[in-house]
Amino acid sequence: MLNFFEEVQTVRFQHCDPAGIVFYPRYYEMLNLTVERFFERQLGYSFNRLHHELEVTVPTVRIETDFLEASYLEDRLQFQMTLDRVGRSSLGFQIVCKCGDEDRLRAIITLVCINFQRKKAVPWPAVLREKIEAILSAGAPPEELPRPDPDMASKY
Amino acid sequence: MLNFFEEVQTVRFQHCDPAGIVFYPRYYEMLNLTVERFFERQLGYSFNRLHHELEVTVPTVRIETDFLEASYLEDRLQFQMTLDRVGRSSLGFQIVCKCGDEDRLRAIITLVCINFQRKKAVPWPAVLREKIEAILSAGAPPEELPRPDPDMASKY
Amino acid sequence: MLNFFEEVQTVRFQHCDPAGIVFYPRYYEMLNLTVERFFERQLGYSFNRLHHELEVTVPTVRIETDFLEASYLEDRLQFQMTLDRVGRSSLGFQIVCKCGDEDRLRAIITLVCINFQRKKAVPWPAVLREKIEAILSAGAPPEELPRPDPDMASKY
Amino acid sequence: MLNFFEEVQTVRFQHCDPAGIVFYPRYYEMLNLTVERFFERQLGYSFNRLHHELEVTVPTVRIETDFLEASYLEDRLQFQMTLDRVGRSSLGFQIVCKCGDEDRLRAIITLVCINFQRKKAVPWPAVLREKIEAILSAGAPPEELPRPDPDMASKY
Repeated sequence: MLNFFEEVQTVRFQHCDPAGIVFYPRYYEMLNLTVERFFERQLGYSFNRLHHELEVTVPTVRIETDFLEASYLEDRLQFQMTLDRVGRSSLGFQIVCKCGDEDRLRAIITLVCINFQRKKAVPWPAVLREKIEAILSAGAPPEELPRPDPDMASKY
Repeated sequence: MLNFFEEVQTVRFQHCDPAGIVFYPRYYEMLNLTVERFFERQLGYSFNRLHHELEVTVPTVRIETDFLEASYLEDRLQFQMTLDRVGRSSLGFQIVCKCGDEDRLRAIITLVCINFQRKKAVPWPAVLREKIEAILSAGAPPEELPRPDPDMASKY
Repeated sequence: MLNFFEEVQTVRFQHCDPAGIVFYPRYYEMLNLTVERFFERQLGYSFNRLHHELEVTVPTVRIETDFLEASYLEDRLQFQMTLDRVGRSSLGFQIVCKCGDEDRLRAIITLVCINFQRKKAVPWPAVLREKIEAILSAGAPPEELPRPDPDMASKY
Repeated sequence: MLNFFEEVQTVRFQHCDPAGIVFYPRYYEMLNLTVERFFERQLGYSFNRLHHELEVTVPTVRIETDFLEASYLEDRLQFQMTLDRVGRSSLGFQIVCKCGDEDRLRAIITLVCINFQRKKAVPWPAVLREKIEAILSAGAPPEELPRPDPDMASKY
């Protein structure tokens, strides 16, 4: 196992704006789908299963996003996710979206485990925590994914 | 004139997810609409006019978002925008989304002025820069809007 | 009272596709919002109130839509709704979307009153049926709205 | 070759509404994606290639949709498309969306071939017409797909 999950998504007509590029709110649907797939495939719990078996939901509480280059219709985007840290009920990770060798966006995300009924943060269920910790202690991804440069916007 | 722009948007069925709350990618449509309205009403240039008269477009290059509390169907959300700084071709601002007295989200956004044909950053047209600078030098909003606390996620 | 309800919506950046016109799935968000507003303003029951006080929801079961002319960024669209018939638990109506004098689309829609818990069709609650019947027996709209021509596509 | 094209799409969180079912405007994104994939895979022309090589776009001018049963998070939906007729510049087809044996929706759609620059209907380019006619003259799909019953809504 690696601390690395990749979900490929193709830019479709529905994602593009009058400038012919991805309208940025659509990227968040793609980021959310990447997280949905990570839970399903890497942790073994789809959002449905999270809800029905563990009675939790995992809303996003913080995102920092740098939009580095535009994406175009039919671009094949690779959303590459690596975990950063797990808290009592939070999970921090980053997603880099690449098209070939080019970084299109980088996001640093925090989500929280919430009990569906009580609507408050609860500790990660053991079955999820174990898997998350195994991933965090696994080897790094094939090559170090660069952290977003906090000064990236300063070039303008 | 004040360094303050408010756009009210009501949470509609189309914004809500199976948990009955605003699905976070929909907030970015609301944030984008707030910016669209700011250009239209405060700067006097709708996105159409920006495009056709000034040949520029203003894509977002960076957003930091803290989702503080959930929003529900039919909540009346006030998106309150204040400018932070203007660069050669960038604009930095924050938007606080409130429902009554409660802060629902805070976003710190940077956008850039791009020439539509050449697809590269260009200096702000004088007509926009003048208005932006006038707003920046105007009095503060009615009450100081608190800056997002970078440690807000740490409570989890 | 008239058998006529109008909801104005402006075409925003989020509605437009790479051809610079409204992407047709976005029209259905606009149609749904028109219905949401009709229930809220004309019948006095928002979707929230429908759900919490009457325990019903009103999903769409059939739509016929003719897309007559394209709509562009910042067009001011008038969605004009007239009721056609009420059944035991169904409601039939049409919505014509105009921009100035030009018809942009026409939709004939059937929705159904469903009990939220039992997930099955139920008769319209009396409080809604009364209002719907009053509207149906009210005078026609200012001028007769033309019915979609079933052969409209044949000109191509 | 058969007059039959299938595109499978999974219901994701982004498609679902507060009732936990697919919000109907999202079905139109799925229908549009099915058409996008049909052009790409069956006709060999992606929307990008249509635009850049043939200078055409294929907007939808008419849709009749019957929503038969609700769809839920993570349902695996099969969108099954069969062509009905080709006109000088129009294409008529139907899409049945199934989940296992259950029909969820049926749509009858007409789209039109438009020259991108002149914004008017043009005859199908020969390279597309040939492929469309070959599909139309091919054998029927594995089993006859039932036509929507025009009276389907009358049961309510």
